Amino acid sequence: MKTIKEGEVRKREILLVARELFVKKGYDHTSVNDILKIVDIAKGTFYYYFSSKEEVLAAIILDIVDEGAKRAERILKDKSIPLMNRIMMAIMAQAPEFEGSDEIKEEMHKVENAKLEQLYTKAMLQRMTPLLAEPVREGLEQDVFHTDYPTESIESILLLGHMLFDSNIMEWEIDVYPQKIQAFLANIERLLGTKEGELNGFLQMFKN
Amino acid sequence: MKTIKEGEVRKREILLVARELFVKKGYDHTSVNDILKIVDIAKGTFYYYFSSKEEVLAAIILDIVDEGAKRAERILKDKSIPLMNRIMMAIMAQAPEFEGSDEIKEEMHKVENAKLEQLYTKAMLQRMTPLLAEPVREGLEQDVFHTDYPTESIESILLLGHMLFDSNIMEWEIDVYPQKIQAFLANIERLLGTKEGELNGFLQMFKN
Repeated sequence: MKTIKEGEVRKREILLVARELFVKKGYDHTSVNDILKIVDIAKGTFYYYFSSKEEVLAAIILDIVDEGAKRAERILKDKSIPLMNRIMMAIMAQAPEFEGSDEIKEEMHKVENAKLEQLYTKAMLQRMTPLLAEPVREGLEQDVFHTDYPTESIESILLLGHMLFDSNIMEWEIDVYPQKIQAFLANIERLLGTKEGELNGFLQMFKN
Repeated sequence: MKTIKEGEVRKREILLVARELFVKKGYDHTSVNDILKIVDIAKGTFYYYFSSKEEVLAAIILDIVDEGAKRAERILKDKSIPLMNRIMMAIMAQAPEFEGSDEIKEEMHKVENAKLEQLYTKAMLQRMTPLLAEPVREGLEQDVFHTDYPTESIESILLLGHMLFDSNIMEWEIDVYPQKIQAFLANIERLLGTKEGELNGFLQMFKN
């Protein structure tokens, strides 16, 4: 008889294999059978854990978002980092890493994988907005940020950051990036209502 | 022998039928054969105009964006409308209308249609950003707007407007919309660097 722990391990194994297949072959071209073959389990076992391929996808997306959120949380806990840097580093840290593989990231961004992108964006905003609400409240209390809409501003910053720099929506030539990053940082300052140039220090990071 | 005009009519007919099928059945569940059956043409005729179903989709998306851009252009031409209202009305007017049918819009927003959404967002930004650059320049010259990044601010406003209010990314309850709209308008003011409250008049439109 399986223990709960074995069940959890089995579930994680399915997720791990499915994730690899989805990014390698694309979501549409991966069948439940493909997953079964590699995990080496019966169909019934799969359906004991997941009701459909879609449910596996949703679970993977939540995993990816969760991994990003945990990286962000570690940074946000470190109050020795100046507030603005802490927020910016957390936003940058939460963007998904796919074992550093550009190929896998590109696969995620293909038109066929638009579903993955959309589910990710939705889950990321739901998870990250409350996380960042706290340091923003800190900034409001310290009178460094000024906005009547802290939640909405964070939501917009996260959404813009993702859409402009992590998704494949913008097809910018590599040489316009410095301008685009500079504009984004200036607009973050405005959305948080902090003083102009507050993020200049941060900008130096991109100047190499 | 077909004249160029007949060819153009045939092409438009394919696009019209395909568009209806894509929104009704979903893009993935529509085959080139489904399109052929309704337009009543041979496979060869279809492939004379389009190399693939993907190409049909791309053409439809450009049509939808173009229809929106034309509505925006008509508004932007009318210099009797105060600048800020002109910009806001143009942004609102360009959002796609599907013959007013909410059902069709919902179909577009289903996860299966994430491709449509992504292609639309990309094409919309490419088309609308230069269109709005002109009135923004007007605002900069008149000293009502203040930003070093007019293009990027317009890009961000268009992207946020679409993602927050026209896509299915945010799953807000109906009662939070007034707050979300108010926040968006306040953030537009900041992104354009106009004075706070400049869009208050516009806000009244949503208060009924």
